[in-house]
Amino acid sequence: MAQTIDLNCDMGESFGAFTVGDDAAMLDLVSSANIACGFHAGDPVVMRRTIRMAKEKGVSVGAHPSFADLYGFGRRRISGERPEDLETQLIFQIIAMQGMSALEGHPMTHVKTHGALGNMAAVDPDLAALCVRAIKAVDPGLVFLTLPYSETYLAAEKAGIRVACEIYADRSYTDMGELTPRSQPGAVIHDPQQSLDQVLEMVLDGHIPTTGGKRLPVEPHSLCIHGDTPGAVGIARHLRGELEKNGLVIAPFAAK
Amino acid sequence: MAQTIDLNCDMGESFGAFTVGDDAAMLDLVSSANIACGFHAGDPVVMRRTIRMAKEKGVSVGAHPSFADLYGFGRRRISGERPEDLETQLIFQIIAMQGMSALEGHPMTHVKTHGALGNMAAVDPDLAALCVRAIKAVDPGLVFLTLPYSETYLAAEKAGIRVACEIYADRSYTDMGELTPRSQPGAVIHDPQQSLDQVLEMVLDGHIPTTGGKRLPVEPHSLCIHGDTPGAVGIARHLRGELEKNGLVIAPFAAK
Amino acid sequence: MAQTIDLNCDMGESFGAFTVGDDAAMLDLVSSANIACGFHAGDPVVMRRTIRMAKEKGVSVGAHPSFADLYGFGRRRISGERPEDLETQLIFQIIAMQGMSALEGHPMTHVKTHGALGNMAAVDPDLAALCVRAIKAVDPGLVFLTLPYSETYLAAEKAGIRVACEIYADRSYTDMGELTPRSQPGAVIHDPQQSLDQVLEMVLDGHIPTTGGKRLPVEPHSLCIHGDTPGAVGIARHLRGELEKNGLVIAPFAAK
Amino acid sequence: MAQTIDLNCDMGESFGAFTVGDDAAMLDLVSSANIACGFHAGDPVVMRRTIRMAKEKGVSVGAHPSFADLYGFGRRRISGERPEDLETQLIFQIIAMQGMSALEGHPMTHVKTHGALGNMAAVDPDLAALCVRAIKAVDPGLVFLTLPYSETYLAAEKAGIRVACEIYADRSYTDMGELTPRSQPGAVIHDPQQSLDQVLEMVLDGHIPTTGGKRLPVEPHSLCIHGDTPGAVGIARHLRGELEKNGLVIAPFAAK
Repeated sequence: MAQTIDLNCDMGESFGAFTVGDDAAMLDLVSSANIACGFHAGDPVVMRRTIRMAKEKGVSVGAHPSFADLYGFGRRRISGERPEDLETQLIFQIIAMQGMSALEGHPMTHVKTHGALGNMAAVDPDLAALCVRAIKAVDPGLVFLTLPYSETYLAAEKAGIRVACEIYADRSYTDMGELTPRSQPGAVIHDPQQSLDQVLEMVLDGHIPTTGGKRLPVEPHSLCIHGDTPGAVGIARHLRGELEKNGLVIAPFAAK
Repeated sequence: MAQTIDLNCDMGESFGAFTVGDDAAMLDLVSSANIACGFHAGDPVVMRRTIRMAKEKGVSVGAHPSFADLYGFGRRRISGERPEDLETQLIFQIIAMQGMSALEGHPMTHVKTHGALGNMAAVDPDLAALCVRAIKAVDPGLVFLTLPYSETYLAAEKAGIRVACEIYADRSYTDMGELTPRSQPGAVIHDPQQSLDQVLEMVLDGHIPTTGGKRLPVEPHSLCIHGDTPGAVGIARHLRGELEKNGLVIAPFAAK
Repeated sequence: MAQTIDLNCDMGESFGAFTVGDDAAMLDLVSSANIACGFHAGDPVVMRRTIRMAKEKGVSVGAHPSFADLYGFGRRRISGERPEDLETQLIFQIIAMQGMSALEGHPMTHVKTHGALGNMAAVDPDLAALCVRAIKAVDPGLVFLTLPYSETYLAAEKAGIRVACEIYADRSYTDMGELTPRSQPGAVIHDPQQSLDQVLEMVLDGHIPTTGGKRLPVEPHSLCIHGDTPGAVGIARHLRGELEKNGLVIAPFAAK
Repeated sequence: MAQTIDLNCDMGESFGAFTVGDDAAMLDLVSSANIACGFHAGDPVVMRRTIRMAKEKGVSVGAHPSFADLYGFGRRRISGERPEDLETQLIFQIIAMQGMSALEGHPMTHVKTHGALGNMAAVDPDLAALCVRAIKAVDPGLVFLTLPYSETYLAAEKAGIRVACEIYADRSYTDMGELTPRSQPGAVIHDPQQSLDQVLEMVLDGHIPTTGGKRLPVEPHSLCIHGDTPGAVGIARHLRGELEKNGLVIAPFAAK
C-alpha cells in the first residue's frame, strides 16, 4: 500500500481581473494542479502564469475542462447538447492546456473534469465514456484523475487509459463508495481530526470507511484539496503537515 | 462651502462565482454606491443584492456603465464602435439599473462611468457628450458624478443635467485640474496624511492643490473610495474616521 | 370564438456582428415580436433597433427571456442554479426590455420564455411558478404568452396574471394537449396543408386535434411563427396569406 | 514571377447557433482558410468542423487570432492591455488551432491576424513585433500571412519567420503601398473588371498600382477573398474563374 500521496487542487480559476483563490500559496502545498481551460474560468494569461509557477515549484499540471459556462463557473448542470459537440469542447480544452504546458516546458500529466460535468459524468456511463474519449483523442498517455466507484473510473479502465484514484478528506462516502450527496446530512466532514483519520485510513489501510459502516477497498493516488473556500490555505497547510507527521510523503501521483 | 461630503465607491462588481471586493463592509462606510451593470462586471443577482444592501444601510445607488468588456473589466480602451451603438449600450445599462433599483424601492440617483470609458470621456468632448446624451435619454433628473475640469463635466453643464463633482484623496492633480496620469511620477499619493490634507483642503477651502503649486477652485460633492484594492476596507474606515474628526458629515451628495 | 389571431415570432436574436433571421421582413408578417434580452442572444443595439422597427410596423413587443447561455443560444437545459437567482435573471431581462421599449415609446405587452427554459417550465410546476413570479414582480399587467395544457399556463392563472394562449402550426399535439416531443415520430408537421388545417381547426373550431384522435378545447390567441429556419420568411408569408384567405384577421392578441 | 496564386478566406467564424458565412461553399473556391480561434468568433465545434472540411477539400488551414472581443467580432480597436498579456492571448489561440488541426491530421500552415488587431499591427511596429513573437513562440516554421509594405511584414522578416504576401482585389493602395483607409474616397474598388486587372497586374507583373500612379514592386502569394459579405460566394466564384482564364493556377501559397 502506498506511503506516498499526491495532493491535487483546482487552480488557474481567475479570469481577467476576477481573482479566485491564492494559487501561489497553494502551489507550495500541493503536488498536482488542475488548471482551468477558459470554459468555466481561466484565461490564457492566468493559465500560462499558473503553469509557470507550478513548474518552478515542481508541481504537476493537468487540464481541468468544464461545460462552457463562465457565468455559472461550470457548476450549473447542462444537458441537451449534442454529445459530439461536448466531446469536441473537452478536446479543445485539453489540447489548449497541453499546448500551453508544452510551450512552458512543463508537459501536463493528467485531466480532471470540473464541477457539474465531473459530478454528472461520475454517475452517467455515456457521459463518462465521452470524457474518456476526449482524453484519449488528445493523448492516450494522459492520466484521468477521478473518483473510485464511479462511472468515470470504470469508463477509463474499459478504454485502457490510466486512472489516478482521487479521495476526499472532508466528504463522507456511501456504502456504494460514492461521495454522499451534499443534500444529505453528514455529507461534509467538518471535524479536522475526523477528516485526517479518514484520509489516513484510506491511504494507509487501503479502504474507504462508509456511512453504513462498511470498509470498501481503495488504492488512493491523490487527495483533493480545496483552494477557493475561506481559509483554504491554512486548512491545506495543516492537513499537509498532519499527513507528513503520519509518515506520508507528498508527491505527484504515479497513476495506475 | 460644504461641510458635508459624500463618499462613493464602485460596487456590485462580482460576476457569478467571481467575487470582487467586500461590498457589505464598504456599504457601512460610504454614502453612495456606483453599481456595475453587467458589461464590465456585475450580473442581475449581484446587482439586486447590492441594491438591497445599500437600501438597508441608507446608501444611495447609481449606475456604473462601461464598455462591453467583461474580460478586460472595462479597463481596456476601446474604439471603433459606431457612436450611436455605444450610446445605446450605455442607455441599456442605465435603464436596467434604473429598473432594478425601482423594483427594490430604492430608486437610483446618479450615473458614474467606469474605467477606460470614464478616462477617455473625461478628455474627449464627443465621447463626453455621448455619455451625457445617454444619461439624459433615460432620465434627465439623474446626476452625473464626474471629475471637475473634465470634458464630461462641461458636457453635462452644457446639456443641462446635474453634475456631482468627484474628488480623489490618493491622486495628485495637474495645473489643468486633471488627475495626473498614472504613468507620471507623483500621480498616486501614498501618504495617508497627505491624502487627508488634500481632501480637507478641497472640501473645506474649496480649491484643488496642483502639482505646479496652483490652487484651482472646486466645489466637491463626493470623494471616491476604492473598494477593490488590498486593505480597501481598512483604508476607507480610517479615512472616514479622519474626515469625521475634522468635522465633516458623510452623507449622499446634493448635486449642483 | 375568435376570428382574430395574433402571429408571434422570436426576434432581436442577432448579437453584435452575428446576424440571426431577417427581422425586418418578419415584422411585415407578424403582429407580435418576442425580443431577446441579451442572455441567449440579442444586445442593446439589436434590441433597440428591433423595438423601433416593430413600432413603425405596428407590431406589439414583448420580452423573450432565457437562461444565461449565449453559447448555447438558450437551448441547453440548465439546472442547479438557486431558484431565486434564476428568478432575478428573468426579472432583469424583463425589466431591461420594459425600459428599452418605454424609452422608444412602444411599451412592451408580454413575455414569452425562450428555448430550454420555456420547454422545462411548461412541464415543471416549480419552474413555471418561478417564471410567473418574475413577470409579476416586474409588472402584473404583462401578459404571459404560453402553451395551453402546460404548467406555465396553470401557474399564470393561479397567480392571477393574464395569459395569451399560443399554438403551433407545424407541431402535433399529444392527448394531454402538449406538443409531441421532437424525439418522437410525427412531432413535426411537414405538410403545409395539414399545418394550415390544424391552425384553422384550433382557431375557428376551438379545439386541438391530438395524435390520439382527441379534440381538446382551446382558445388560441397567438400562432407561433418561426423566424430562423431556412425559408422562414416565405413560409410565414404563405401561412399568413392562407389564414387571411380563410377569413382570419391578423392582429396583436387580446389576452385572456 | 509566380503563375500560381493562393486564395485565402477567413472562416470558422460561426459561434454556437450563430452562423457566419457559407464555409462549405467557400472551401470549394479558396486554397487557404484562416480559422477563427474563439476570441472574436469560432468555437471548438466550428473550428473542428472547418478543419475537417478544409482537409477533405485540400485547403490549407491557418490560425486567425484576434483581440478577445466576441461582442465586437474583433473589429473594435482595443488598447491598454499589458503587451505580454496580449501576446499570451495570441499564443493561446495559435496553439489551440495548432492542436486541433494536428488532431485532425491536417497541420496548420500559417497565421493571419484578424480585424482591428491586424489593422493596428500593420502600422504599429511594437504591436507587429508582438504578433511575430507570438507566432514564433508557438512554431517558428509557421508562415505569417500579411500585407506588403506593412510593419507586420517588416517585423516578420526581422525575426526571421516566413511571410506570405497578401493582396486585395477590391482595395486600392496608397503610394506607400498600404491599403487606402476605408474612410477615404476610392478605398474600395467596386468595379469587378478593375479588381481583376489589379490582381493580374500584381500577380503577373509583380507590382502594385497605387492611387498616386506609382508602381511598387510586390511578390504576392495570396489573394484575400471575403466570405461574409452579401453575395460572397458568387463574387469569389467569378473571380476565381477569371483568374484561371488568365492562366493562373490556384494553389496554397509557397511562402517566402
